[in-house]
Amino acid sequence: MSHIIRPWARKDLKAVVGLIRELASFHKALDQVKTTPEMLGDDGFGKDATFGCLVAEVPPQQGSKGGGTIVGYQFHYMTYCTWDGHILFGEDLYVVPDFRGKGIGSSLLAKAAQMALAKGCSQIRFVSANWNQPAVDFYTKLGAMNVTIQNNWNLCSIEGEHVQKLAERARK
Amino acid sequence: MSHIIRPWARKDLKAVVGLIRELASFHKALDQVKTTPEMLGDDGFGKDATFGCLVAEVPPQQGSKGGGTIVGYQFHYMTYCTWDGHILFGEDLYVVPDFRGKGIGSSLLAKAAQMALAKGCSQIRFVSANWNQPAVDFYTKLGAMNVTIQNNWNLCSIEGEHVQKLAERARK
Repeated sequence: MSHIIRPWARKDLKAVVGLIRELASFHKALDQVKTTPEMLGDDGFGKDATFGCLVAEVPPQQGSKGGGTIVGYQFHYMTYCTWDGHILFGEDLYVVPDFRGKGIGSSLLAKAAQMALAKGCSQIRFVSANWNQPAVDFYTKLGAMNVTIQNNWNLCSIEGEHVQKLAERARK
Repeated sequence: MSHIIRPWARKDLKAVVGLIRELASFHKALDQVKTTPEMLGDDGFGKDATFGCLVAEVPPQQGSKGGGTIVGYQFHYMTYCTWDGHILFGEDLYVVPDFRGKGIGSSLLAKAAQMALAKGCSQIRFVSANWNQPAVDFYTKLGAMNVTIQNNWNLCSIEGEHVQKLAERARK
């Protein structure tokens, strides 16, 4: 099966949000998805856009059951490590079930790696659910390291009212 | 003790890199610090700068033993969650030992929270070493959630030759 990897365009917004929702469903978190094609378009294509997305596209005759030709995406942004500089962070990597096992996921990540090197990044970081064994196997095969297990780094967040309360302290 | 929180300026680069090195020493990772004031200045103050830093400053007569008046920093950048949009990511938060317990860490984070809200962020994310109990206690008190423990998200990375190998695939 032929596929191409290319940076997303505005015409892909609806398809990408569809895939974002599929991935969130897999994580039993569809109720947490607030993004819409409009919101993602405003945030992702303006002059202040801080993120990018790669899409995997197949020819129409090889498209998905639903008729879609965008069968995977890789969502990323630049971050910075105070120890060694620029790092590309991969927020999401997803390929629709019917198109797995064909190298599309690694093609998406390969293109992201190429971009990372072009931007002077020393590494690619991402988060992965530790119960998602196919994903763990996929990343391990590509040489990924689990920083949480090896170096005890845990991902944390401060949300909603706690951010508000914190911000109020700064106003005093 | 009086202190102010303000965005960093080029004049703070040497002091901030000094604190970055102190924090890395605490994590027994000083050998991993490749950043220099020059590198951080080029990356952080150009038109393509993708990150920012807040510093905590005390008056000269109240400065540290080494004579420094920059006694803490909070390093951050904007990221984006495909589920709910803009998120401020706090890369480092550090206060020099002699100046702890005076509210400087929470002042730095409060200012970051204020910036996060102004930029439409739904949350602040960061990583924390799970063995650093004073840090865990500090963040828990502010309402932070450990996403690794609660939702099984692990932080991973692909580094060095593995990024090179991945990128080569995209060239084929």
